Amino acid sequence: MTDAPRPEARAPRGFVDRRARDVAAERRILADVCAVYERYGFEALDTGALEYADALGKFLPDADRPNEGVFALQDDDEQWMALRYDLTAPLARFVAQHWESLPKPFRRYATGTVWRNEKPGPGRFREFTQCDADTVGSARPEADAEIIAMAAEGFAAAGLPAGAYSLKINSRKLLNGLMTRAGVTVEGQKLAVLRAVDKLDRLGPDGVRLLLGEGRLDESGAFTKGAGLAAAAAEAVLSFTAAGGGSRAEVLSRLADVVGGSAEGDEGLADLAAIDMALTRMGVGEDLAMIEPSVVRGLEYYTGAVYEAELNLSMTDDAGQPVRFGSVGGGGRYDDLVARFTGQPVPATGFSFGVSRLAAALRAAGRETAARARGPVVVIAFDQAHMGEYFAAAAELRAAGIAAEVYLGSSGMRPQMKYADRRLSPAAVILGGDEIAAGLVTIKDLDLGRQLSSGVTDNAAWRAERPGQVQAPRAQLVAAVRAIVEAGA
Amino acid sequence: MTDAPRPEARAPRGFVDRRARDVAAERRILADVCAVYERYGFEALDTGALEYADALGKFLPDADRPNEGVFALQDDDEQWMALRYDLTAPLARFVAQHWESLPKPFRRYATGTVWRNEKPGPGRFREFTQCDADTVGSARPEADAEIIAMAAEGFAAAGLPAGAYSLKINSRKLLNGLMTRAGVTVEGQKLAVLRAVDKLDRLGPDGVRLLLGEGRLDESGAFTKGAGLAAAAAEAVLSFTAAGGGSRAEVLSRLADVVGGSAEGDEGLADLAAIDMALTRMGVGEDLAMIEPSVVRGLEYYTGAVYEAELNLSMTDDAGQPVRFGSVGGGGRYDDLVARFTGQPVPATGFSFGVSRLAAALRAAGRETAARARGPVVVIAFDQAHMGEYFAAAAELRAAGIAAEVYLGSSGMRPQMKYADRRLSPAAVILGGDEIAAGLVTIKDLDLGRQLSSGVTDNAAWRAERPGQVQAPRAQLVAAVRAIVEAGA
Repeated sequence: MTDAPRPEARAPRGFVDRRARDVAAERRILADVCAVYERYGFEALDTGALEYADALGKFLPDADRPNEGVFALQDDDEQWMALRYDLTAPLARFVAQHWESLPKPFRRYATGTVWRNEKPGPGRFREFTQCDADTVGSARPEADAEIIAMAAEGFAAAGLPAGAYSLKINSRKLLNGLMTRAGVTVEGQKLAVLRAVDKLDRLGPDGVRLLLGEGRLDESGAFTKGAGLAAAAAEAVLSFTAAGGGSRAEVLSRLADVVGGSAEGDEGLADLAAIDMALTRMGVGEDLAMIEPSVVRGLEYYTGAVYEAELNLSMTDDAGQPVRFGSVGGGGRYDDLVARFTGQPVPATGFSFGVSRLAAALRAAGRETAARARGPVVVIAFDQAHMGEYFAAAAELRAAGIAAEVYLGSSGMRPQMKYADRRLSPAAVILGGDEIAAGLVTIKDLDLGRQLSSGVTDNAAWRAERPGQVQAPRAQLVAAVRAIVEAGA
Repeated sequence: MTDAPRPEARAPRGFVDRRARDVAAERRILADVCAVYERYGFEALDTGALEYADALGKFLPDADRPNEGVFALQDDDEQWMALRYDLTAPLARFVAQHWESLPKPFRRYATGTVWRNEKPGPGRFREFTQCDADTVGSARPEADAEIIAMAAEGFAAAGLPAGAYSLKINSRKLLNGLMTRAGVTVEGQKLAVLRAVDKLDRLGPDGVRLLLGEGRLDESGAFTKGAGLAAAAAEAVLSFTAAGGGSRAEVLSRLADVVGGSAEGDEGLADLAAIDMALTRMGVGEDLAMIEPSVVRGLEYYTGAVYEAELNLSMTDDAGQPVRFGSVGGGGRYDDLVARFTGQPVPATGFSFGVSRLAAALRAAGRETAARARGPVVVIAFDQAHMGEYFAAAAELRAAGIAAEVYLGSSGMRPQMKYADRRLSPAAVILGGDEIAAGLVTIKDLDLGRQLSSGVTDNAAWRAERPGQVQAPRAQLVAAVRAIVEAGA
């Protein structure tokens, strides 16, 4: 043993350890969503966790340690690297690097961990899993429609029933057309308008009206300067954001009244009409994907269609309080990201599943469909002299596809049964000296024990058809264990 | 577009982008190995990519930037964090943190990326995937046996046939017993002896004899100081390392002559005898797992049994030169790792698969068993007016479980066929205006086209039973495509 001071055993702030049940739930979501991506003709791509900071963009090294928002470090040749904060920036780097040799359009999906150097808090982590699909090199609005259809199918595959979520679609072009009609041409004012619209959910139309005009004083007494629109222009913006509801065609017709006539507005309307048509032909119903003019998303990032996936499930937390999960995924068209490297605009569109968040939402809603956590069959270890018998039994069970282990601690019978119970083992295999001598094996039904002790089942009725333990000839070990494991499944 | 200087699109040194085929191969290995781990009763655990540097150990922050060997960075509260360099150090931290509440023994497996801040080179990356299983809290040698049996089953599941690899077992206790018999008691001299033995593969017995004695002058003229053993002691060490070959029991009997009688030597012999017995009862043959006294591994880390998995496949690189892949996994018993935190020794044993290395080895050996890379069915896009027809066709195919996409670029028929070919599509679906009017669909067999053009198949014979394209009623799209996809599979 070392005499050095002992470090404290703790995970870094904002990082969590996940046990078997959480790992299984997330792994299942990823497998199901990736299967959908592959069915839509997207191919897998894995890029590294670290990228050069200048290639990641947005977080250029402007200080000695460019640690704002990302986890950054300097390589031994002095170049700054950072852990990726999403899967899109690495895709743009990859596409710019290999554009000539890629099939075009390039359809790729990716799953992986991303890191954000933000202040951690309850439910706010600094490491999480994303699962993205993007089409790079197609300017067609149908490429957006396909991404939306795929997102809908992905949510269904992950276990969300129709009605549990909404995919809300908008187009940045409509918003730009609206600006033109409202006489907003200065970039800073445009951003102020978008930021105001983005608060509609939280502040309602009256609050947003203030933010579109002179400004708003909140409850705490803090004043937010407004976008400075005239009253008529602010009303035009508000009537735009209120144009949602009903079928996609109805919303489009209402929107045409507000933004039709401007070049960008007409383009946005045509895009959304093409998206509507393709969605309809792919069987994506009006209840799953709707046009919602109040959706904004990533202010300085998207250039065309934007999509946002919101949960409609009503959930309560451990304290019985209602929980709003909000967005569990989103995306849109970003035509400028590859141009950062090459100078040539490359049209691109994609969607990102918030896998960790979706897993948390499914769990909170009681819709987690991962296989029930279940431990291995435990072969009880009585006697060092018979260890060989125990290992032979475990090997037979494993060869038959049944998870099994020999108890490897040094405790007696009672702690071993407790161990098996903590592992949620379906059964314990008992090979005492007498049993071995008689060529027999005893199998204890632990699922039944748990059900009885939790009062889930009627003791007497169950006992009749399902005894707590059975004795079988040793040669029938596998069959006898399987019967008990399957009865509890 | 921004006027900022354009960054160069490149991945950081030592990091690689992996395309679909490599992703699929590695993912399959992970799934197969994890299934084995679960069958052996190990439960999944995911810890974060970053750990506090002091918790990772080995690389304590002794300088301003403790970047030696790991990728380290400072959190905003000034604590140093580092990307994990293996999956064992985070396990030790987790176990120390949660020991009281864990089932004991604690059997966990983990898969994940690890990072090493080393000089990159050809085939030497700074990011790779590991897949570990460890039993924490059991001092029984049978726990080691189980880990070895599981490793063997894992390699088989990953696609390595028996004979393609060897699991070599040794015990650090034997080596310690040998030291006692050779009169080596100073720690520094012990390490020098172990380092010399570790070079047996490369230098042969004569080279090692020099390193055990006064020292060795290599071809370049550099002198390595030796361990300073007397001639008789050096010969005892060499006869120990030469005691391999034959059955496990034969090797043990030879070793008893060399190290029997010392306390540690006898303990090591008893451990290996128990491991041999359990391996035999689990059906792990002498050809898969052998006792090999020359195996050393991680000098200051292991405390008991050690295991090393080596490939026996003979492989050649692109230039036709023989390639030695060496170790594709290994592990052993490390009883001191948790004690770093708690002061209490906790016995532990585990195995780590080098997944990236194993994938590379399987590929080099032509034994990659991942599903053949295959693209989606491509629905050709002729006419904007008919886009709806194309999307409906793609949706039908996907609903039937067939990967499909509509071509979303803006090129004509010929580039679209070329695109489908580059994606390794099995078929192209053609819905021209005439076909749509007549209620028909044409399907082109692209697998056949590739086989014909590569000269794999006899043109005339194949043409007879497998025409290059078929025309079918539109209502039979799915059946007609499936027939072609399955013929090419």
